[in-house]
Amino acid sequence: MTIGLLGMGTIGSGVFEIAQSLEGVHVKKVLEKRFQAEYITDNIEEIVNDPEIELVVETMGGLHPAYEFASQALSHGKHFVTANKLLVSVYGPELTKLAKEKGVAFLYGAACGGGIAYLANLEIARNIDRIVALGGILNGTTNYILDSMQSRNMDYATALSEAQALGYAERDPSSDVDGLDTMRKLILACAVGFDAYVAPEEIPTFGISAVLPLDVEQARAKGRVLRLCAFARRAEDGALSAWVEPTLVCAASPEAAILNNVNYAWYQGESYGLMSYTGQGAGKLPTAANVLRDVRSVAAGHRYMTGEKCAAAHPDNASARHAYYLRVPAGAELPAVWAAEKRCCGAWDVYEVKDAPVSEMHALAARIPGTFFAGVQEA
Amino acid sequence: MTIGLLGMGTIGSGVFEIAQSLEGVHVKKVLEKRFQAEYITDNIEEIVNDPEIELVVETMGGLHPAYEFASQALSHGKHFVTANKLLVSVYGPELTKLAKEKGVAFLYGAACGGGIAYLANLEIARNIDRIVALGGILNGTTNYILDSMQSRNMDYATALSEAQALGYAERDPSSDVDGLDTMRKLILACAVGFDAYVAPEEIPTFGISAVLPLDVEQARAKGRVLRLCAFARRAEDGALSAWVEPTLVCAASPEAAILNNVNYAWYQGESYGLMSYTGQGAGKLPTAANVLRDVRSVAAGHRYMTGEKCAAAHPDNASARHAYYLRVPAGAELPAVWAAEKRCCGAWDVYEVKDAPVSEMHALAARIPGTFFAGVQEA
Repeated sequence: MTIGLLGMGTIGSGVFEIAQSLEGVHVKKVLEKRFQAEYITDNIEEIVNDPEIELVVETMGGLHPAYEFASQALSHGKHFVTANKLLVSVYGPELTKLAKEKGVAFLYGAACGGGIAYLANLEIARNIDRIVALGGILNGTTNYILDSMQSRNMDYATALSEAQALGYAERDPSSDVDGLDTMRKLILACAVGFDAYVAPEEIPTFGISAVLPLDVEQARAKGRVLRLCAFARRAEDGALSAWVEPTLVCAASPEAAILNNVNYAWYQGESYGLMSYTGQGAGKLPTAANVLRDVRSVAAGHRYMTGEKCAAAHPDNASARHAYYLRVPAGAELPAVWAAEKRCCGAWDVYEVKDAPVSEMHALAARIPGTFFAGVQEA
Repeated sequence: MTIGLLGMGTIGSGVFEIAQSLEGVHVKKVLEKRFQAEYITDNIEEIVNDPEIELVVETMGGLHPAYEFASQALSHGKHFVTANKLLVSVYGPELTKLAKEKGVAFLYGAACGGGIAYLANLEIARNIDRIVALGGILNGTTNYILDSMQSRNMDYATALSEAQALGYAERDPSSDVDGLDTMRKLILACAVGFDAYVAPEEIPTFGISAVLPLDVEQARAKGRVLRLCAFARRAEDGALSAWVEPTLVCAASPEAAILNNVNYAWYQGESYGLMSYTGQGAGKLPTAANVLRDVRSVAAGHRYMTGEKCAAAHPDNASARHAYYLRVPAGAELPAVWAAEKRCCGAWDVYEVKDAPVSEMHALAARIPGTFFAGVQEA
């Protein structure tokens, strides 16, 4: 497989490095502006018009020009492999359609879970089994922060700075800490696992930027651990629900054992039962290895990750409901219908909400600044 | 893919059931003596000589006649898929060779981990990455027993009876509780992950039949949990070590979070880092689903799970050494060179052995009846 590689950043250089040692894989040209070398070009035309290049690997990240380059590559009949979850969460349906028209591959196995072959396994499982639910801890940065707060009693700002110093978090960390990165990965998992294209704005997403040491203490007092979890399920009648929110998981749960920046992704199949995958959700070599797994998979004849029936779907998160931990500024009013026990903690009121609709809880947090909430995992 | 199915027991009937709903998969004939139906035959010749049958699925278990049937099927140019770890641990090299000669497939993805696609992922990882180590909790029966002793303070005999009543343990539980089932799965993992065929007698294997509530208490007092673990590693110079033994894992480790009869299999790759897979290691539908994953994989062109270089390898477990928990009858003598702290517990002496060679520890336990030991996981 002769490859044109777009971008020679962290993941791109990992792909380049691993490809050197693989038989049957040859990176012929690399699109990159920062370096010069015989194999480097700064012109996408030189890659998409090269008849020897059969497959384009995109590791630039971002929406543009990644989208334009993907369209060009597919239009020129090149297979396309990417680890870019933002690109796939927005343009996945369109690019898959284009790939089908052109009879070439569009794979993104490394875009959810980095080194974990979660989507690849989910796809195979979906073709044998009915997937009932899926989710997990899909963002390493936020897990690093929450674990540091839990295990080392750090506050949020210190844990975030440490994550930035270690290269786990971006200088602008909002897409991680606001849960957007997790939500985009959940979109990919819903497409692959449920054949359901869900729009970003239809997934209630609450991140961890409001979390306080108080919340971690409250979790600990209940024998719980705080994690940022993605969750989606598809009922037998096709009804979908999906959300991203901090969750108080049981201390003996698999989620609680996920430390540092590790990722944990699971699905539940009617036949398979609960299957889970744990490993490096990001990082140069793990992610690059999974990109090359996709390259090998294209060589073996694999083409698309979603099924023929994949179509737009609209989650109903108003009828989905469960127990919540909720912290609001003292005196803030909750909907009268929520059964909730209240404790006063200085400037905050802390509630144990027995049962509230997911969409209402997310709406309440959006309305009242400083609010933090977390779903309570069933014991 | 038109299939001949050998055996209509638990897994076989699961394969039959799931195959009904899969496009492109048709079970044409079933070899079975206990039932009668239009598609059932009691004569293997009717399957291997049927020109329409392209693939034979074996779910009978046991060495004979499974081995003879496998040879016949492959010799007649039929692809062969099995979940039979005993068969593959003994005849894997020979059957793979025969399959290569005949140009047909020999796959056994469900033979280690049941519903967990561990071997399939390990194989893909091996083709991209150098696998450094692998292992896990590969037997659900023993995990059920150990977890029951740990979480519900049962004694061994009661936990075993319960496992038998639930159908997790056989009437003769020795292959599970003596660690043989785990060892066979480790043989398969070494073949796939390291391209190393290891003979059963070369893997030091110690099970859990000697475990006492005292051992579980001692573990708990140290903040540890007892699990039966398989482990193998391959050094850069190719030197291999491999063993199966009870292990005192840390309470915060992923192993400690593996409850009931769940399985947990992991590998560590130079690029991938540590990747792990958790799910149903056995059971009708999970295992059957993975058998059908292999069937689909054959249809997509997949043929063998071991690489071209796969060859016999001999683990060196004399130079492998680590810390152990050891309980021997009071007064039993330990090798003088072992640095060990002793505590007296009634009829038993309990040692914390700082460092002992794996093969010597296994030999000591074989020599002194009633002895129980467990490796100590590094914190």
